[in-house]
Amino acid sequence: MRHLHDTILVIDTGGSLARTLVHAIRDQQVYCEVISLRRFLVGDIHQPTLRGIIIAGEKEEISSDALRQQLDTLQIPFQSIGETSFRAKRKETQESILSEFLFSQCGCTTDWTVDRYIDESIEQIRQKAEGKKVICGLSGGVDSSVAALLVHRALGDQLTCVFVDHGFMRKDEPDMVRRMFTGQYRIPLVFVDAAERFLKKVDGILDPETKRKRIGEEFIRIFEQEAMKIKAAFLVQGTIYPDVIESGEDGQVVKSHHNVGGLPEHIQFEGLIEPLRFLFKEEVRAVGRALGLPPEMVDRQPFPGPGLAIRCLGGINKEKLDILREADAIFRHEIETKGYRDRVSQYFAVMTGLQSVGVTDGARTYDYTIALRAVKTDDFMAALPVEFPWEFLQHVSNRITQEVPHVSRVVYELTGKPPATIEWE
Amino acid sequence: MRHLHDTILVIDTGGSLARTLVHAIRDQQVYCEVISLRRFLVGDIHQPTLRGIIIAGEKEEISSDALRQQLDTLQIPFQSIGETSFRAKRKETQESILSEFLFSQCGCTTDWTVDRYIDESIEQIRQKAEGKKVICGLSGGVDSSVAALLVHRALGDQLTCVFVDHGFMRKDEPDMVRRMFTGQYRIPLVFVDAAERFLKKVDGILDPETKRKRIGEEFIRIFEQEAMKIKAAFLVQGTIYPDVIESGEDGQVVKSHHNVGGLPEHIQFEGLIEPLRFLFKEEVRAVGRALGLPPEMVDRQPFPGPGLAIRCLGGINKEKLDILREADAIFRHEIETKGYRDRVSQYFAVMTGLQSVGVTDGARTYDYTIALRAVKTDDFMAALPVEFPWEFLQHVSNRITQEVPHVSRVVYELTGKPPATIEWE
Repeated sequence: MRHLHDTILVIDTGGSLARTLVHAIRDQQVYCEVISLRRFLVGDIHQPTLRGIIIAGEKEEISSDALRQQLDTLQIPFQSIGETSFRAKRKETQESILSEFLFSQCGCTTDWTVDRYIDESIEQIRQKAEGKKVICGLSGGVDSSVAALLVHRALGDQLTCVFVDHGFMRKDEPDMVRRMFTGQYRIPLVFVDAAERFLKKVDGILDPETKRKRIGEEFIRIFEQEAMKIKAAFLVQGTIYPDVIESGEDGQVVKSHHNVGGLPEHIQFEGLIEPLRFLFKEEVRAVGRALGLPPEMVDRQPFPGPGLAIRCLGGINKEKLDILREADAIFRHEIETKGYRDRVSQYFAVMTGLQSVGVTDGARTYDYTIALRAVKTDDFMAALPVEFPWEFLQHVSNRITQEVPHVSRVVYELTGKPPATIEWE
Repeated sequence: MRHLHDTILVIDTGGSLARTLVHAIRDQQVYCEVISLRRFLVGDIHQPTLRGIIIAGEKEEISSDALRQQLDTLQIPFQSIGETSFRAKRKETQESILSEFLFSQCGCTTDWTVDRYIDESIEQIRQKAEGKKVICGLSGGVDSSVAALLVHRALGDQLTCVFVDHGFMRKDEPDMVRRMFTGQYRIPLVFVDAAERFLKKVDGILDPETKRKRIGEEFIRIFEQEAMKIKAAFLVQGTIYPDVIESGEDGQVVKSHHNVGGLPEHIQFEGLIEPLRFLFKEEVRAVGRALGLPPEMVDRQPFPGPGLAIRCLGGINKEKLDILREADAIFRHEIETKGYRDRVSQYFAVMTGLQSVGVTDGARTYDYTIALRAVKTDDFMAALPVEFPWEFLQHVSNRITQEVPHVSRVVYELTGKPPATIEWE
């Protein structure tokens, strides 16, 4: 669908400007993609809808000869922007520099809007699926929910959703998903309670990647079983644009995908439907809002596919999961009821698995440490820890140690991304 | 030496009032001890210098019949104080209630002063050691330093100090101890560099108690070797009053002693010299100050005998110790240079041993989490986490992740004691 739109390509030659520009350009309702210099130089450039290129780097000078040559060959309007001098400018000046390039030099049209996106997506999904059955795995998160809703809008009962409850969901979450999809939207939903099966699969596993793999594999196996019953031709995936960007860079994968599983291997689908593949998180939310998804789902934080399993460091067992679920529910409740929801992009508790000596009623204990994580971010590629009032952190910490058995310490993370990631695992 | 002083006994029947009262009474220069109700009822009461008893509990009523009987038998002035009503009173009123009891009812003399304590200690130490050789193990902490200085004041070169560098000291600490004792005070010092020996002893050990035991045993073995060369008759130990109180309660040991080792088993000393056995930490510091110990040693925080080894959770190796030492040095430096020293009773970094996924320069990392711990406390029996400005915590966190290799996360602990302890292990 992006081929229908005038497209600006931002080439990332270093620093953090490129991603800022992509958002800024999309804010001006012009479709825009980002690519690393390396991939730009070796890639096939699809030229038809590309009528402008911005080179975003630390300095304005283009130091790569290969890039100069490529730009000469392409004969497309381009502009190089240097991070330091650009960021030193006032916001209005920054916006007018972009406007000048987008509209005067490249003649872009402002056709990147939510409503248009939805209409085009629906049309494309219909063309692709052509009356065939489609299956969508729900994770309980906003991406797969919005993807499902968009596909349901396009295809109605051609779509069946599958929710595999792996037992690593947050408190009350499986019930909420079930109520929303079957009750409110009346989308056919297959609900699989597989908590015990998954717990067995990760028993004794300490390595986070092995954990993810085992959970992912088990997830796919169960999903395949359901898909075979449904006999679906297409698979819906809630892949979003940051996943696309992050997974492709330099072969050094910053994270394995948070979306559970990847592609089922034992089923030959005719194809994938990835209706959010070129949207940032905020755009996904805007689409969700436009489709009438309720705020508690639209504003839902990202939640990793393997769920609490990856927030439970070291070995996983039911006790540790239950402790984490309760501590997490307290932290989330306090943030939401004390009015901090808007200041925080993502917040959750982590079961560190660390046991240390403590004291309760004069007796020695050997209980767990819970870490609290809360970050503010625009795009989840970089994030800062959130500053809460000390009293708030103390209150949350006290509630957790008092109400959740076997927690003797609570810590709050001070690190941003980078050098940490948002999730712990 | 306490037998020389009028003594008030505070019987702890519950709540936290008893320990507050002990400090308040000593502040009025009257010697005072605390004992649990259980131990009071089964113990032998040494009556000669006990001319007053305070029963400190949650309520003023004395609910124990056994206690009433015992008090009747003893025929000593007593007063029962209830926590809730006492704490509700103004500070001046609280003080006058105590004064009234101490001076009008019991006729106590105000003879509990630092100078008098030092004089009496010196006299007692001389009487006990009678020209014989004495050995004192230095830990680098304030207790053993003050004990050594007090004994050196009493016995001069009869005292030899032994410092076993187990390799778990903080940055630059072994050098500082060596310079201070041999350079400044000219106390005979045997300095043993045993870092490699200790590292081998804890290789692969995960359990904190086993770690402590192994380090303690190795420490004693080395210490014994040195003591045998010196042929000392007496052993100086820096035991302080909270150790005495905490270790005796209910048989449920809140912590193993932080003092390394305990008694050497293979040497028959004639006896122990424990010149700080009835002092609280603040009193130990006051004695240190009066003996001319410099502020950087007097105001030194408590440091556990096994040192960084117990702040290095899980397995210990040189890399983890080096990371911890650097992170700890940064945190301490920042607290001390930014003027927070007076607001904090104890502060240090912890190597959690947790490794988690992070990102640096676009590449995936799998690095460590450092925890920062800072508490405010009067007596180290209960403690609250310290509230720092957010900017300060951010600055420390950034310095650590930027300057110390292989640290990707920094957390700050929100928990007090109880339910946590001050140390992690």
